[in-house]
Amino acid sequence: MTESYWIDESLKRKTVQDFIEKAKKLYPVLIHKYKNPVSYTEQRAKEEWLSTKEYLSGATWIELKKDDRVIYDFGHHTVGYITLDFDSKGSPQDAPAFLHIKFGERRNELFEDSANHEGWLSKSWIQEEWYHIDELPLLLNMQRRYAFQYLMIEVIDVSKKYRLVVKDVRCDAVSAVDTKLIQPLETKDELLRKIDEVSIRTLANCMQTFFEDGPKRDRRLWLGDLYLQALTDYSTFQDYGMVKRCLYLFAGLTAENGMMGANVFAEPKFVVDDTFFFDYSLLFVYTLADYAQITGDLETVQELWPSAYRQIELAREKFNDQKLFIEDSQPCFIDWKDGLSKQTSAQAIFIEALIRAAEIVDLLKTQGQVLIAESAEMLRREADLYKESAMQYLWSDTDQLFYSGSQKQISYASQVWMILAGVVKGESARRLIRHCIEVNPDMNMVTPYMNHYFVEALIKCGEKELAMEHIKKYWGGMIEKSADTFWELYNPDDPEETPYGSSMVNSYCHAWSCTPTYFLRGAISDII
Amino acid sequence: MTESYWIDESLKRKTVQDFIEKAKKLYPVLIHKYKNPVSYTEQRAKEEWLSTKEYLSGATWIELKKDDRVIYDFGHHTVGYITLDFDSKGSPQDAPAFLHIKFGERRNELFEDSANHEGWLSKSWIQEEWYHIDELPLLLNMQRRYAFQYLMIEVIDVSKKYRLVVKDVRCDAVSAVDTKLIQPLETKDELLRKIDEVSIRTLANCMQTFFEDGPKRDRRLWLGDLYLQALTDYSTFQDYGMVKRCLYLFAGLTAENGMMGANVFAEPKFVVDDTFFFDYSLLFVYTLADYAQITGDLETVQELWPSAYRQIELAREKFNDQKLFIEDSQPCFIDWKDGLSKQTSAQAIFIEALIRAAEIVDLLKTQGQVLIAESAEMLRREADLYKESAMQYLWSDTDQLFYSGSQKQISYASQVWMILAGVVKGESARRLIRHCIEVNPDMNMVTPYMNHYFVEALIKCGEKELAMEHIKKYWGGMIEKSADTFWELYNPDDPEETPYGSSMVNSYCHAWSCTPTYFLRGAISDII
Repeated sequence: MTESYWIDESLKRKTVQDFIEKAKKLYPVLIHKYKNPVSYTEQRAKEEWLSTKEYLSGATWIELKKDDRVIYDFGHHTVGYITLDFDSKGSPQDAPAFLHIKFGERRNELFEDSANHEGWLSKSWIQEEWYHIDELPLLLNMQRRYAFQYLMIEVIDVSKKYRLVVKDVRCDAVSAVDTKLIQPLETKDELLRKIDEVSIRTLANCMQTFFEDGPKRDRRLWLGDLYLQALTDYSTFQDYGMVKRCLYLFAGLTAENGMMGANVFAEPKFVVDDTFFFDYSLLFVYTLADYAQITGDLETVQELWPSAYRQIELAREKFNDQKLFIEDSQPCFIDWKDGLSKQTSAQAIFIEALIRAAEIVDLLKTQGQVLIAESAEMLRREADLYKESAMQYLWSDTDQLFYSGSQKQISYASQVWMILAGVVKGESARRLIRHCIEVNPDMNMVTPYMNHYFVEALIKCGEKELAMEHIKKYWGGMIEKSADTFWELYNPDDPEETPYGSSMVNSYCHAWSCTPTYFLRGAISDII
Repeated sequence: MTESYWIDESLKRKTVQDFIEKAKKLYPVLIHKYKNPVSYTEQRAKEEWLSTKEYLSGATWIELKKDDRVIYDFGHHTVGYITLDFDSKGSPQDAPAFLHIKFGERRNELFEDSANHEGWLSKSWIQEEWYHIDELPLLLNMQRRYAFQYLMIEVIDVSKKYRLVVKDVRCDAVSAVDTKLIQPLETKDELLRKIDEVSIRTLANCMQTFFEDGPKRDRRLWLGDLYLQALTDYSTFQDYGMVKRCLYLFAGLTAENGMMGANVFAEPKFVVDDTFFFDYSLLFVYTLADYAQITGDLETVQELWPSAYRQIELAREKFNDQKLFIEDSQPCFIDWKDGLSKQTSAQAIFIEALIRAAEIVDLLKTQGQVLIAESAEMLRREADLYKESAMQYLWSDTDQLFYSGSQKQISYASQVWMILAGVVKGESARRLIRHCIEVNPDMNMVTPYMNHYFVEALIKCGEKELAMEHIKKYWGGMIEKSADTFWELYNPDDPEETPYGSSMVNSYCHAWSCTPTYFLRGAISDII
């Protein structure tokens, strides 16, 4: 996989302090839940693993010598802070205890040797620590936050004179929301119930002081993820404040010309990254339009409208006189798929941004808000021009599919986005998506993020059954592989696929994967 | 080398609370000195090391990327707490910084891979840490105390988007004493001046809240080390309070029968180890006798006398009816030399303990202290009986040397201790030590601890020139190998020798090595 990162150290940034202050005021109160492991498994001196036993808080004391290991299973994917209650047994502690503590969102992460990770993504994301404990007993409050279901303590060395005792393991689990408040999906289909539950847990564990893309990695606010998280939040937790906070952060932290970053940093200080994706910036318009419709909070929408519209203005510059997106004029995310041409998807995403912008303008006008310079009608007419260009330059009558780029590449993404933008509609759209599935282009979809749009497109074409089938196959496939939260990456044909050179740094609780519940509780709730 | 450790988990301990309270009141005020490195050396991406540069506090900022390393040299062996002032440069910090920080008393320790240490002594002593830094800038106050001259920071990973910046490195160096208060030895002999300086630094860096054996390892109060540290302290820092504190700790923390441990733990709580050496327990008598003569603090000596005498009572039980030490009746340290028979040394150490005990009794009587049950005369007469036994059963007329054990082993240790105990005296002693050097037994000496007694024996025989020669050769040999403090182990024929399976866990600032200054400023000061 190609290395994918962008650096612009000379980037000039702009901060709208008023927006930042508003975002700060929306800092959420995190919900803390104390959790113990549900079970544990011991291994002596790197020999066979013993049988798994139930964990009883206060009664499960584990004695470890050199090369002994114990794995604690917390039952579910958890985000939080760990406290370990250590003591010693035997002769006085005549040497430090030297421990390796490793966390895994999945169990097999525990056994991967981080020294072997040579991908381009930093191995600093691997969740493991080493501790020297000079004096026992010690209540060790680990300072960093971890995302995990499994925790392994490995004694690299104590001394021959004493054993390390683990008297208790507990986690201060944190999230901005409480999954207990969401009723389980009413269905007799166990797989669907599970898909829904896992979706919700995925979203909840990503909802911290802002919408994180993943609580293991990158723990950052990305616009593409935000768009899908907000959608899913509306049909579950309805934490509108967090969406608003994130909208203000993106609008408050931009490049000097007002372009929104693909992501912003919230810790240790607010700063926009020097990565700019054509599609992600425009997704701000989508997210604001949804927010307007769901919340009716038009005061906020009014205030953020100029920032949203600025993304459209900047995007226009990436098109040629034929109103065609200029290939590679700006990085565009779309999907992790290597070699994917982004041109056609970008064209469609811009068209839909114009349409969503028009919706916002309509809403603001309807509600008697201050008049804004842009007319909804003009935006829609503009969208039509770009649609015509798409049909003229990107549609292939021969293949009955959209091409993308100078290589006339056929991909799922191009068809999906053209349908979502309404460039083809109704029966034509239905024919297109079915034809695409039939052709099954090599340029397939690799992320749950892109798969979300595929499902959305199926529904838009009226293919709810196919949408349901795809959800069961794709997200259900992760469940079959024991997912307790949905993953950043999932390729049914290659479950260990990673864009990072090694799956050790993959995120197995990733926001952009959380949308099945949005579909199951929304557009396809009638066919459950 | 044989594994050497003792475990007795069933040991019953006795604490004399009054003694512990007295020891607590003598807790020293540590002297803190802020130190910066004097120079640093960088390495990029594991390529060649760049040239060493002067370190300028506040002006030496080092930027590091993945696989870069920097070594800071503090100029001298230092004991203390490190603060690292970190920042980042480049794009926003999009991944944690993952660092390996390693300390070396000697430079080559930095390059030894701790994974390769498979000796019996815990690898937890290797001074290294791993840190994940989630948010930069960070002022990292490392919590543990280190003993080092060199500090290496190795960036295992950052990300491709930013560099780690080390803006400052400083050490809060600690010791109970200030070496600046000791005048350098007056001599034109540069080697002797250096030996004296290094002796004093070795002692100072071991003087913390008590006399540690080594500030890297074990950081503990051992009786054998205390004896030599107190001797050296009297001719340099004259910190009598610390000696007194340590005497109370040994007397206050014993086995149920009153036997003193080979070492005691002071942190996190006071406790005697379950290791008991025949020779070390008796060295309490030697140490108390020295303390009495040097300080004249007979009140303390009076109070501690019963504890000291108890060691003699317990030692008597290890002799047979012929007043001969029963081979292997109790572990005895003497030296690390593999296969060394301890019988003859133990015999001599007991004899000398009786003589030193008699000195204490004399002093207490002279000073009009409360009468004590034991008479000095009786103790001396008893010593003579054991001397006679030594001559009868351990002396070889054929070899004109002392044997030891059933294998009639000839060793340096046996001759040295018999001389120190005055079993042979005057011209006979002189002949014996010269004959021993001539024979040069295979059972030689491996620790500076044993070499100290050899020098002491030479001086006792009137061989000051040989004593000086040996100091220059043995401790001077470490200086030649760049020692900035004297080592725990030094075998001129095998400088990397270790009793621990790997020299990574050797201590290169070790109290029992600090005595040359005691000789140079004392018994042989006239021949400098």
